[in-house]
Amino acid sequence: MRISAMTISSSQDTRTDRLVKWAADLKYNDIPDDVVQRTKDFFLDTLGCAIAGSSHPAVSAMVRFAAQMGPSSGKSELIDGSQTLTTSPAFASLINAAASHVVEQDDLHNRSIMHPATVIFPAALAVSQDIGASGEDFITACVVGYEVGCRVGEYLGKSHYEKFHTTATGGVIGVAAAVAHLLKLDANQTLSAVGTAGTQAAGLWQFLMDATYSKQVHTAKACFDGIFAAYSARDGLLGPQDILEGPRAMGASLVPGETNPEAIDQNLGTDFAVVRSSFKWHASCRHTHPSVDALLNLMAKNKVAFDDIDSVLVPTYQAAINVLSLSGNGDTVHQSKFSMGFVLAIAAKKGQAMITDFTEADLKDVSLREFQNRVKMEFNSVIDSQFPERWQGTVIVTCKSGKSFTESVTFAKGDPELPLTRFEIEAKTHALAKYGGITDTSKVDSLIKRAWNLEHEMDVKGFVF
Amino acid sequence: MRISAMTISSSQDTRTDRLVKWAADLKYNDIPDDVVQRTKDFFLDTLGCAIAGSSHPAVSAMVRFAAQMGPSSGKSELIDGSQTLTTSPAFASLINAAASHVVEQDDLHNRSIMHPATVIFPAALAVSQDIGASGEDFITACVVGYEVGCRVGEYLGKSHYEKFHTTATGGVIGVAAAVAHLLKLDANQTLSAVGTAGTQAAGLWQFLMDATYSKQVHTAKACFDGIFAAYSARDGLLGPQDILEGPRAMGASLVPGETNPEAIDQNLGTDFAVVRSSFKWHASCRHTHPSVDALLNLMAKNKVAFDDIDSVLVPTYQAAINVLSLSGNGDTVHQSKFSMGFVLAIAAKKGQAMITDFTEADLKDVSLREFQNRVKMEFNSVIDSQFPERWQGTVIVTCKSGKSFTESVTFAKGDPELPLTRFEIEAKTHALAKYGGITDTSKVDSLIKRAWNLEHEMDVKGFVF
Repeated sequence: MRISAMTISSSQDTRTDRLVKWAADLKYNDIPDDVVQRTKDFFLDTLGCAIAGSSHPAVSAMVRFAAQMGPSSGKSELIDGSQTLTTSPAFASLINAAASHVVEQDDLHNRSIMHPATVIFPAALAVSQDIGASGEDFITACVVGYEVGCRVGEYLGKSHYEKFHTTATGGVIGVAAAVAHLLKLDANQTLSAVGTAGTQAAGLWQFLMDATYSKQVHTAKACFDGIFAAYSARDGLLGPQDILEGPRAMGASLVPGETNPEAIDQNLGTDFAVVRSSFKWHASCRHTHPSVDALLNLMAKNKVAFDDIDSVLVPTYQAAINVLSLSGNGDTVHQSKFSMGFVLAIAAKKGQAMITDFTEADLKDVSLREFQNRVKMEFNSVIDSQFPERWQGTVIVTCKSGKSFTESVTFAKGDPELPLTRFEIEAKTHALAKYGGITDTSKVDSLIKRAWNLEHEMDVKGFVF
Repeated sequence: MRISAMTISSSQDTRTDRLVKWAADLKYNDIPDDVVQRTKDFFLDTLGCAIAGSSHPAVSAMVRFAAQMGPSSGKSELIDGSQTLTTSPAFASLINAAASHVVEQDDLHNRSIMHPATVIFPAALAVSQDIGASGEDFITACVVGYEVGCRVGEYLGKSHYEKFHTTATGGVIGVAAAVAHLLKLDANQTLSAVGTAGTQAAGLWQFLMDATYSKQVHTAKACFDGIFAAYSARDGLLGPQDILEGPRAMGASLVPGETNPEAIDQNLGTDFAVVRSSFKWHASCRHTHPSVDALLNLMAKNKVAFDDIDSVLVPTYQAAINVLSLSGNGDTVHQSKFSMGFVLAIAAKKGQAMITDFTEADLKDVSLREFQNRVKMEFNSVIDSQFPERWQGTVIVTCKSGKSFTESVTFAKGDPELPLTRFEIEAKTHALAKYGGITDTSKVDSLIKRAWNLEHEMDVKGFVF
């Protein structure tokens, strides 16, 4: 006796349906030019992040996993050109996604509190290489992935983020939608892809307690699992039809507090997640950025030097306090980027907090550690009430002289309202490549040139350092 | 600049530590004989389940996924011999785990409300084939996998099960531990494997609402993800050190109610999960089994026939009501196995509820549907208070004659207190193989013989129908 396949035709009109139909139908020509341009910005930004993070031991372990479990070669490439492996899209994206989330320089979609670039681009890139998709196809799929992933992240909301790494849980849905678009799945198949992605959604914050490597596992597996969801949906695997708002779905099971249902489908096609995402200029946890900007502004305006500062008070929102309280004093370089005190110490002392500003030597710098101990975060209900719509920063600095200064920023550098210029993005890419061991700057220039011309590229092969 | 690896040496003494150390240290000779024997019982039972479910479209989609994303051949085999694919252990176990969870005949660990066999055996089998492990090594790894997985499931408890499919979330931890044992990881590496498994733990019940295929995705991915966790831990990927009881770990994030911390490490080495697991004799959701047994007993004792019955009242525990309320009337064969009314109708009419008793034709049988509508479940606080330690069944039957009968069972057939005999297991295996299209019964006999001799096998290759 054999079991026959069943089919489901979606006759409901849920928010999930509407989001998925929009995603399945999106054409390149529907995408506004500023969205296309910003997509290219973030794509290049992600390539830089991937090369900078490619030697992390989590990435090396995944390269070895791919070599043991995957094919001996394939059409999908590792962004780190020093790896000889080519493989299938599921494994290539696993590795590239892990690599691009190591150095804390990838983008942020503010309202959902998730990092879309590190999951959407690796998955779409690897699948595009596998199927020979064009630059336009790739961009369209990435716009779909951002939109679906970030809307789901925003739907899941702040209380979800307290328990789960939304980059993973919203990310896997975004990946499934992006890959479904590349595979030209219809709306029903895309609904299955999204459903199967959602029932795999996972990612806990426990790794912050001991500086272990789950952050990279989360982005890597969001890619792998989302690709699994989309390919298997194409091949007949039915997924739950309302994985967002159904009675046993993500909202009901993964959100301890309130969801934001309207985020799923309001203003589809007019309010694009890509242009609501922000660049990371500093190399630390994004929750420190507004405070870093406020502190640097304060020091410049008032001619305050590192040694002048006695203490810093940082009124902030609850999510910042939660995440930044989990890494202790910051005993490793990675953990130190999750310490408000240490990050402000670095910024105050060095005048910036770029990737090269966080070193093993700094961890032992007594002046930084003393400064760190004189920084306190404090819950502020006004700032909290506006988060994550706005990521505001305020610092109150008391100088050894007794003088006190306060400075606030409404937007951080890199926010949608203050985006990086192309010049700054290129400079950041060169810095990330250098950090990643790339000495041939002409190679970087050539990738930059191709990225700016992405919509005219016949394929997306060879985006390799 | 390159990033250097860090190491973590576990100096704490958490329950997770103690469980993991026990797992890493377990030797074949430490395992009591009844545990070895029961492990072989469940292994054979799983082979039968896998062949019976191997033509499900979810399985076919995964075979295609493995062919596209995995290697073109490998040392790990598909239990369904009709598939020509051999592949790497991650993909072989993905497919075998999906197949073995299709027909609802795999085992149950009562206290954790999870199905260990369908995840532990496929993962341990595929990895054992890849590394050339012996029958003894395989059995030891399976005992480890059962123990760790079921203890985590029991720790997560009843309220977790309301939101999550514990077979997936406890399962991925069990798989990681079993595979870590096969790879001879030390306790610290095993702790990382378990941690990385736990941060991937996922699996929602939403699929029950529309009879989609996530149940198979959950078991499949528990295998894949657990293998990923163990292999990558061996290769240097550090995982969170207390993924069970840490402040942002599984207990804190995936359990809305109470956890059972003592389940993690009490009576390790004396109270084995394998012998606390029960066989499924009926082919329906395990929550229906006690009631089926009670009904069949009642009908036999009191000479009540199907046509005599006017109505059936089923006092039961909350988890049964929750799960069995999600599949509507049971419009598909799979859904019909999750309807208390329909399952009791089948049992009452056919005198049993075996795999061949649930057919498309039965879905349209008016007498079954009418009987189904006259079955009501009712919450019973006494039965609920003892669940899941005991899965009790009570039915109150009112006959058309006006007579009323009540019957209760403390244990269901197949429970640890009423296990199947080897004769019954063999008969069940033959039935499952026949259902799976195997006509050569000598092939089945030969697999049965090898399974009973498992501890003396030099390797575990060729367990293929």
